[in-house]
Amino acid sequence: MHELAVVGGGVIGLAVAWRAAAAGHRVTVFDPSPERAASRVAGGMLAPVTEAWPGEEDVLALGEESLRRWPEFATRLASDGYDPALSTAGTVVAAFDRADADTLRTVASYLHDLGRDADYVQARQLRRHEPGLSNAVTGGLVVPGDLAVDTRLLLDSLRMAALQRGAALLSEEVTAVEPGEGDRIEVRTLATTRRFDRVVVAAGAWSGRLLPDLAQHIRPLKGEILRLRARPTTLPPPARTVRAMVEGEPVYLVPRAGGHDGDIVLGATQYEAGFDTAVTARGVRRLLDAAERVFPGIAEYEVVETAAGLRAGSADNLPLLGEVGGGVYAATGHHRGGLLLAPVTADAIAAWLAGEPVPPAVDAAHPNRVKERV
Amino acid sequence: MHELAVVGGGVIGLAVAWRAAAAGHRVTVFDPSPERAASRVAGGMLAPVTEAWPGEEDVLALGEESLRRWPEFATRLASDGYDPALSTAGTVVAAFDRADADTLRTVASYLHDLGRDADYVQARQLRRHEPGLSNAVTGGLVVPGDLAVDTRLLLDSLRMAALQRGAALLSEEVTAVEPGEGDRIEVRTLATTRRFDRVVVAAGAWSGRLLPDLAQHIRPLKGEILRLRARPTTLPPPARTVRAMVEGEPVYLVPRAGGHDGDIVLGATQYEAGFDTAVTARGVRRLLDAAERVFPGIAEYEVVETAAGLRAGSADNLPLLGEVGGGVYAATGHHRGGLLLAPVTADAIAAWLAGEPVPPAVDAAHPNRVKERV
Repeated sequence: MHELAVVGGGVIGLAVAWRAAAAGHRVTVFDPSPERAASRVAGGMLAPVTEAWPGEEDVLALGEESLRRWPEFATRLASDGYDPALSTAGTVVAAFDRADADTLRTVASYLHDLGRDADYVQARQLRRHEPGLSNAVTGGLVVPGDLAVDTRLLLDSLRMAALQRGAALLSEEVTAVEPGEGDRIEVRTLATTRRFDRVVVAAGAWSGRLLPDLAQHIRPLKGEILRLRARPTTLPPPARTVRAMVEGEPVYLVPRAGGHDGDIVLGATQYEAGFDTAVTARGVRRLLDAAERVFPGIAEYEVVETAAGLRAGSADNLPLLGEVGGGVYAATGHHRGGLLLAPVTADAIAAWLAGEPVPPAVDAAHPNRVKERV
Repeated sequence: MHELAVVGGGVIGLAVAWRAAAAGHRVTVFDPSPERAASRVAGGMLAPVTEAWPGEEDVLALGEESLRRWPEFATRLASDGYDPALSTAGTVVAAFDRADADTLRTVASYLHDLGRDADYVQARQLRRHEPGLSNAVTGGLVVPGDLAVDTRLLLDSLRMAALQRGAALLSEEVTAVEPGEGDRIEVRTLATTRRFDRVVVAAGAWSGRLLPDLAQHIRPLKGEILRLRARPTTLPPPARTVRAMVEGEPVYLVPRAGGHDGDIVLGATQYEAGFDTAVTARGVRRLLDAAERVFPGIAEYEVVETAAGLRAGSADNLPLLGEVGGGVYAATGHHRGGLLLAPVTADAIAAWLAGEPVPPAVDAAHPNRVKERV
């Protein structure tokens, strides 16, 4: 049994805390403002496949490793009393022209090579699945295997389950993680200094402040989303996650299974903008413009929320996951994949705490790969 | 001295209540949800001139009558301790092409005939006034006389001043206004029935429910606005109100003098949508798109609010202002002009309560003009 500090109360921190607490460790989570977690501002696609691209095999392998764990992760969370309402409806990726179609056929064939199910179909057949798609859509990729989750329901579920398993959640900002006496690690906040024998830094884009060796490899990537709500007079939302490229920028519409019926999360912009989290006029306009081109009925939906979050980017899009020394673990740099990668990350930390091995896909994400390059 | 009920706590109701209370009447304002007032969702342009168009002389005459009263209205409010921060920076109306320019020259010449100052200038000169205007702007009308007001600051000021002058504000919904015993008028809410000797119905788009003879002449016109905020890295807001037609739809950017420095109110869409007040994806997208074409720097502004309100439309764009019988007055149908027309409306009610005459421009707005047509 370890005394474990988890710095960060987003999806990674809470998943790690819940799993570690369930395994019998004594867990303390530090987060002064969990509402700023990037995972609160996320579509909730658990979609390594349609995010995949030849050349990022390590990213896909880790994503697939985690996707396989998602159903059991959700089942265990539900059996703790907090069902995160996993959606199994899959994804549709729409094409507008021949270039899009060629790209999606390439992705389909790449996925077939990986043993995954993914078919490119013509517009007529596509609209049988999703009748609300624009007439300008010429075809699309149908991917049955992708999952989606209501991000806020998941975060609430993880927090409640972690508390129930005995974790403590402290609303304090950690200012330093340093070696202490003996094998202890000091975790300092503005108010106190506490001692632990293991520490997981899962502070997303803010992790660099606590992991100086990795600081230059973690950068904030701002993303904006909108939440839109169907109304009695509008088309219902799509049944599946719908994705497309519009003027070179990716857009996704993720229907929310849990919570309000008829909500869609529309995302996401991506900027390098430091720690700025303002929702900009341009971001909102681009998202709405793109969404209307893919799913015209959304024009009459109600805009119920605009939000921005900071994803933790790494240079190679793989997270930074592993021990950085002296019982301190990095679990950050999850970029657009925090929701997807929560189960494999939580399982990896649990394995390390128990002295057990982790799968090769997790080893590939070890922070040493970037430290050696410094 | 009268016992006066005012139904409606928007800008018209509050202005009437404040003036009447200051004149010594005993005033009760009824409004269960003043936050839904159309005047809370308004740019705050006091601009009869740039709204003017040949053929609506009655509307312009009433607007000019009220505009003349605005400085004294603001001064009196300030001397009661609640300065509404009147802006005197004026308006710029931007043109994109020859058709726009021709239209604006027509407006300029029409305004000159009316003795108003308004010059059409070329792009170079226009940008000396407003350097943030798009390069696509070819020229524009500069109107020094237009005023603007921070709508929410004004509403707060009127409410506080009315309370200080002895008015009572009740959070109750009026369900009926009916003749009572003697010369008294019964004002019924779900909770109570109270008696008054004069009643002003200033319930905006909801007024028709209490004025059955006028019900078919008052219709809700939905309008959406956005509030955007300049940031340290952006261009500052324009100094003046900036207006333009973009793809046949009017757009305005009103800089806020009071409140947060650097805010712009961007408006406004207009729909016939019943009593629906959802902010729609299309409305937001159109406003942002239009604003970026006029003032490109706004793309980097923060979107801090989206809102929709219901203006009270009348068939001829003139308000319905006058006694409808038995001591009950209509003060509704102010459409896009509620802020502008608050002083003349409040003065008219005060005059009628004192048995004094009103100017011809007010007589022209009497509800008899539509009742006779029924």
